[in-house]
Amino acid sequence: MKILVQKFGGTSVADLKKMELCARRVIEAIEKGYRPVVVSSAMAGETDALIELARQAHPRPPERELDALLATGEQKAVALFAMTLNRLGYPAVSLCGWQVPIVTDAVHTKARIKKVGKSKLLKLLEDGYVPVVAGFQGVTEDGEVTTLGRGGSDTTAVALAAALKADCEINTDVPGVFTADPRVVPTARKIPRISYEEMLELASLGAKVMQIRSVEFAAKYGVRIHVRSTFSPEEGTWIVPEEEVMEKLAVRGITMDTGETRFTVVKVPDRPGIAAEIFKALGDAHIVVDMIVQNVSHDGFTDMSFTVSKNDADRAEEIVRKIAQKIGAKEVVRDDRVAKISIVGIGMRSAYGVAGRMFDILARNGVNIKAISTSEIKISCLIDEKYAELAVRALHEEFIEELEELQTD
Amino acid sequence: MKILVQKFGGTSVADLKKMELCARRVIEAIEKGYRPVVVSSAMAGETDALIELARQAHPRPPERELDALLATGEQKAVALFAMTLNRLGYPAVSLCGWQVPIVTDAVHTKARIKKVGKSKLLKLLEDGYVPVVAGFQGVTEDGEVTTLGRGGSDTTAVALAAALKADCEINTDVPGVFTADPRVVPTARKIPRISYEEMLELASLGAKVMQIRSVEFAAKYGVRIHVRSTFSPEEGTWIVPEEEVMEKLAVRGITMDTGETRFTVVKVPDRPGIAAEIFKALGDAHIVVDMIVQNVSHDGFTDMSFTVSKNDADRAEEIVRKIAQKIGAKEVVRDDRVAKISIVGIGMRSAYGVAGRMFDILARNGVNIKAISTSEIKISCLIDEKYAELAVRALHEEFIEELEELQTD
Repeated sequence: MKILVQKFGGTSVADLKKMELCARRVIEAIEKGYRPVVVSSAMAGETDALIELARQAHPRPPERELDALLATGEQKAVALFAMTLNRLGYPAVSLCGWQVPIVTDAVHTKARIKKVGKSKLLKLLEDGYVPVVAGFQGVTEDGEVTTLGRGGSDTTAVALAAALKADCEINTDVPGVFTADPRVVPTARKIPRISYEEMLELASLGAKVMQIRSVEFAAKYGVRIHVRSTFSPEEGTWIVPEEEVMEKLAVRGITMDTGETRFTVVKVPDRPGIAAEIFKALGDAHIVVDMIVQNVSHDGFTDMSFTVSKNDADRAEEIVRKIAQKIGAKEVVRDDRVAKISIVGIGMRSAYGVAGRMFDILARNGVNIKAISTSEIKISCLIDEKYAELAVRALHEEFIEELEELQTD
Repeated sequence: MKILVQKFGGTSVADLKKMELCARRVIEAIEKGYRPVVVSSAMAGETDALIELARQAHPRPPERELDALLATGEQKAVALFAMTLNRLGYPAVSLCGWQVPIVTDAVHTKARIKKVGKSKLLKLLEDGYVPVVAGFQGVTEDGEVTTLGRGGSDTTAVALAAALKADCEINTDVPGVFTADPRVVPTARKIPRISYEEMLELASLGAKVMQIRSVEFAAKYGVRIHVRSTFSPEEGTWIVPEEEVMEKLAVRGITMDTGETRFTVVKVPDRPGIAAEIFKALGDAHIVVDMIVQNVSHDGFTDMSFTVSKNDADRAEEIVRKIAQKIGAKEVVRDDRVAKISIVGIGMRSAYGVAGRMFDILARNGVNIKAISTSEIKISCLIDEKYAELAVRALHEEFIEELEELQTD
């Protein structure tokens, strides 16, 4: 039995007409010899409407009740999806998280999957039914309904695929993962095949396509994911183990992130424990710090810069100003107009001079670098926000388009 | 622990403002020393909207999926109800049918309750929570979601009350059960206390107040029901075992039913098996026959009349005309303009001349009787529809209002 997990996102099942197109995708898979297991999100807008209702009922609704409420969104969608498949002549049965069961821990609103029951699903498949499983939701061992957090339907789909040793198709409203954001770089192209690790580093591209946690999950269990458009027959992007990626490109994709704010604490006394004090205070306030740069010390003083998410910037500023005063720093400079540009590729590990070439491209385009951070397969530069799109386009042209031209020669 | 089951209907929880009024009723019960268990219907309009969606997805949706879909309505309501109680400072927890569990048979869309789990409810009560249970829904032993049919939330409430040995409060949009329809008889009064049997016979009054099946359920398990208005502090009507009804009135209430059609098969050959043939054919077509009258035979012929629900009248006519022709009856006369007027009271058993007095009142008001049927505690007369309201008012005046005046003398 060649099982295929097919997940459909909220925009794909936004209304019954669109849901029928999704059902036709399922039927195509059956006609190709697959036995599909469908995972559906709530119809677009449904979850937001439920959250708004909850907010009216309680300014801070108990998370257990919020989960009970939100779970109805997917439940409604899968019942309608199963009805649609039945109407088209394909017997189908809807299942809530507790019916599968998809067993999670008890952390309401962001539960993690602990166990997936596969016997009921296998029985349904053997009996000729298409199981249509509610995404995003699970059940604790005590029979409490949980949800997996925003985008959790992707995780449901990957977990089912892992349990059933199947591939996982993510049907969404974009045709796949691109080398850059096509709205910024019109020449961006669809990536046919990408490793889990690259996909995780391309988070800011990928987040629009699928939830990051589900990619981690897929990496852990080796589930092959096919991200594609619900509304087009084209192949999308395969997210696969590294050994299945043929071309180890130095640069697979380029991302731009304008969601961070930079703080610089100027003239910090350079003595042990000062950095720890600042970052511990931010950590205590649950603020995630991203890029950190400390300059070389002069005369016992140094400058220290770091970035945080714009959402946390106001709280971070308050904390940092307080500490800066306490430790006798000269001032705190806040800069909201920064952008983080990254290049990502597993080929970077074995290629020389990728970083140097990146800095050179930026310099030739008159872009000043404010901070740098690197991982094994990623280089990020913080630059002035106004150069962000220019920088992405220049990097895309030299790292990706030129390479493609060489290959097609 | 003095447990009270409080059920709120769809119009009572139609929006979050009304739901808060319901929550305040629950709090009042707590303040009076009760430990409430809440049962809620879906918010008014929700179930109809879901049925309409289902109909768009499938002209005849599979009943299993219809149940899965409809169950979301109550689930949404109870989560919001629990949030509201929490906001008002009273810890509450919502429960779906499968979480209680309310175990039913597998007859989707009209399942019957087989077993009610009480240990989870008792545990929650002991821990200081208000359990808020989704009405109308259950779960089979195989973990399939079922629903109990329209108005099934009443049955849920009565079943919980039976399991918990508690009273059952039905909070609805009317103040109780009346001696007659107040829109027809402005002097109709609220009945303070009524027996199960009377309530069942007063179905046509009671159906607007609560589901008949739930009254049968209550009678079976001796659950005392208090029907009252959600939006008024007044006592409503208690539906109780006969031994708790002090005044055994000959006439507790008067009902009027204009929902039937009368057929008369004229000049039927009066030989064995003819009546059976007609009523078997109707039974085979799932048509319920109500009043049946067969006249005395003359010259080997008789006239036979019966009534069916107006909804079934067209189908019944087709069947009856076919048989009439076959058996050589002279003709079939259809009369849609009839009304069934009934008087109901357990005191009728021991009172003389109630029927005679009813016929006399109708005769004095110039109302001709077309058919009569009786039970131990009910007398029904079929009359011309145009006299229906006049007849109800006259009967109410003589049987109920005069009595009241006597008593207050």
